[in-house]
Amino acid sequence: MRLSRYFLPVLKETPAEAQIASHRLMLRAGMIKQAQAGIYSWLPLGYRVLKKIEAIVHEEQARAGHIPMLMPTLQSAELWRESGRYDAYGPEMLRITDRQGRDMLYGPTNEELITDIFRSHVTSYRDLPMTLYHIQWKFRDEVRPRFGVMRGREFYMKDGYNFDVDRDAALHAYNRHMVSYLRTYERMGLKAIPMRADSGPIGGDDTHEFLVLAETGESEVFYDAAITDLTLGSREVDYASEEECRAIVEEWTAPYARTDETHDAALFEAIPEDRRRTSRGIEVGQIFYFGTKYSEAMGATVTNSKGEVVPVHMGSHGIGVSRLVGAIIEASHDDKGIVWPEGVTPFHCGIVNLRQGDAACDAACEEIEAALEAQGLEPLYDDREERAGAKFATMDLIGLPWRITVGPRGIAAGTVELTSRRTGESEEMSLLAAVDRVAEVYRALP
Amino acid sequence: MRLSRYFLPVLKETPAEAQIASHRLMLRAGMIKQAQAGIYSWLPLGYRVLKKIEAIVHEEQARAGHIPMLMPTLQSAELWRESGRYDAYGPEMLRITDRQGRDMLYGPTNEELITDIFRSHVTSYRDLPMTLYHIQWKFRDEVRPRFGVMRGREFYMKDGYNFDVDRDAALHAYNRHMVSYLRTYERMGLKAIPMRADSGPIGGDDTHEFLVLAETGESEVFYDAAITDLTLGSREVDYASEEECRAIVEEWTAPYARTDETHDAALFEAIPEDRRRTSRGIEVGQIFYFGTKYSEAMGATVTNSKGEVVPVHMGSHGIGVSRLVGAIIEASHDDKGIVWPEGVTPFHCGIVNLRQGDAACDAACEEIEAALEAQGLEPLYDDREERAGAKFATMDLIGLPWRITVGPRGIAAGTVELTSRRTGESEEMSLLAAVDRVAEVYRALP
Repeated sequence: MRLSRYFLPVLKETPAEAQIASHRLMLRAGMIKQAQAGIYSWLPLGYRVLKKIEAIVHEEQARAGHIPMLMPTLQSAELWRESGRYDAYGPEMLRITDRQGRDMLYGPTNEELITDIFRSHVTSYRDLPMTLYHIQWKFRDEVRPRFGVMRGREFYMKDGYNFDVDRDAALHAYNRHMVSYLRTYERMGLKAIPMRADSGPIGGDDTHEFLVLAETGESEVFYDAAITDLTLGSREVDYASEEECRAIVEEWTAPYARTDETHDAALFEAIPEDRRRTSRGIEVGQIFYFGTKYSEAMGATVTNSKGEVVPVHMGSHGIGVSRLVGAIIEASHDDKGIVWPEGVTPFHCGIVNLRQGDAACDAACEEIEAALEAQGLEPLYDDREERAGAKFATMDLIGLPWRITVGPRGIAAGTVELTSRRTGESEEMSLLAAVDRVAEVYRALP
Repeated sequence: MRLSRYFLPVLKETPAEAQIASHRLMLRAGMIKQAQAGIYSWLPLGYRVLKKIEAIVHEEQARAGHIPMLMPTLQSAELWRESGRYDAYGPEMLRITDRQGRDMLYGPTNEELITDIFRSHVTSYRDLPMTLYHIQWKFRDEVRPRFGVMRGREFYMKDGYNFDVDRDAALHAYNRHMVSYLRTYERMGLKAIPMRADSGPIGGDDTHEFLVLAETGESEVFYDAAITDLTLGSREVDYASEEECRAIVEEWTAPYARTDETHDAALFEAIPEDRRRTSRGIEVGQIFYFGTKYSEAMGATVTNSKGEVVPVHMGSHGIGVSRLVGAIIEASHDDKGIVWPEGVTPFHCGIVNLRQGDAACDAACEEIEAALEAQGLEPLYDDREERAGAKFATMDLIGLPWRITVGPRGIAAGTVELTSRRTGESEEMSLLAAVDRVAEVYRALP
């Protein structure tokens, strides 16, 4: 992409309304524009990150054997009356009346709708296990929306629902989701810690939240430092194996890690003092096992292998896709701007031309652009007639992990400069060596 | 994908509420489930087609140099009051009040919001031309929703907006969109004819609708048969070239083609009688040039090259993504079910195992599945323990263009059967020959 033809409205001034880094940086980097309180337009750069995150979620759901579909944003009040949540939900639910006077709502979650789909079509244990999910816009009418996309009203979320014949099978689904989520966050460059949580309005016995450590987090968190050393890395996981999933869950849930809602001071004190950590965290996902809460209320039953009709065991599992854009920035930025992890960066590499209009520099930039594209990468080439300082400031602000700088002196010597956004370190090398180095980094991503 | 692990709830009976083929077939093939009047859940098979169509739209927009972004579903009433459309729009607009008592609406289209983004960030002709687009859910509170996803209330649509410094530049954007749309529909296996249209509530001087011929279309259409012979094929188009785009537009708009709204009997009579056609058509897209209608009302101006401040010239351009799923089925089905064009098929090839559990048949099916996947294709393997008749009926109903049938007699002779859904013709060949033949068909797609 050529910056001269792109729409990247970066702001010089820091917007007054933004209280936290991610909100500030997303506005300054031209990623979002507020449409009204808690509702944002995703400008081209922000949209690209949103789609990168969404793609990772889809890929990891596919790996776990979950089936994508799509439910609508608006739902009928009727189904929510069946489950009893229509009255219970409170003013966060956006209630709507259509032209015929029918009660509708903008879905904040989809347990009712998916249970209705299930009960209409599935009757036998032979069709189980089954996990369906979708990624769709949702609405929660927050009384005080703030922190940009972190606590918006219209938000993009993955929510998945497992259907199993009994509690044991449903617990495997729970474990499978935890493993799948760990991998999902790792690919985004995040350390997201599963913490025992309260269930809130979804209900349920077992639930974990995934929290990213950040000073601006809404929750206070207490954990054993040992948990931050854990990593899945390139470990191969057989998601169909109950044992394998359970072992990973046990590994990740053995060290103490809780939010203030479930914190147990006595257990925390039992951790060796040098490993006790108190911090703040941003919730980026939650998994629930809630058994037959919805299936009983709504009559979603199957025949089990003994021929008995039993309510299906369910859980629901969410990842805050739009919120993750903010959470990643909270976890990864510096004074100059965003520092994207390679897994979610909107463009893989920036190209800065220090002398636009100079034939040799222009030709070198175009060659780099073509060479990166030939490797399947998406470069952003700053081909504007701007001072070097302005170009560097823009690149630092929007946070592409790698930058190749082309100037007349280097080109005369046959070199360009490759710079890491994270370390700030630069290295001179040949044009093709720089392209290869960048391509190698992305090829090595899990 | 193995059918035994998929969620494909096909229906044996024809649902009573469905009046047209596409609605009937989408329900029967387990593609959608009605959530409430005019609002649908996209079950896994339907979701796949929706995503295939969306991907083609994105690819062709990228080819034309248009920039993707994303605006929210809910909008503030304020902006619509600025343009004067809040009161003008009528009861099709779903009006919503949030917990603070603020007036909102579920966007039926996005001229106001995009104009607001533009005026906040762009001030100079040097940033033009610019075309931004998004694909997002929209809502129109139809008084009588019907025909399934063809006339639903919540619908998925691509809408794009061009911003240009003057009328000439905007007309190039108009032409560029027409060419880009022609290619988009061709890739979906559709013959969509651009027809002069009325502008409706968007306003504007120049507008064409794209109509797919089908008996169940909502519009009566009149055209010169010559237009249905036109095809872009593999023609390379330079979208930046005004001449090239204009020449293609002239080619496609020279033959008479109009809907009943703009029909001119005298012009129609002037066509040689053997080429005069009257039919019905389904609208699958529309392009508008409306000049300064919104930019003047909302103060979206730029400085032109002479230093004058002028209102920007705009147009808007829509493709009904969810509606296309129905339109394609209307244009391509038979007594047995859907016949997907290769460009949008949910799976590329079906695999039918006539004797599930037979070691040789199972091994052959798995080999075919792996070989197709190795070619980058997505097969659907019917591995259920079902009679051959039921398996064939399901495959015919869901309409995959190609089917490979594996039976014990063929396997003993070293052959499988490759069947075209469209012609019904079958051919015996070796397993690898069948895979190669299928792969070749998809490689040849534009």
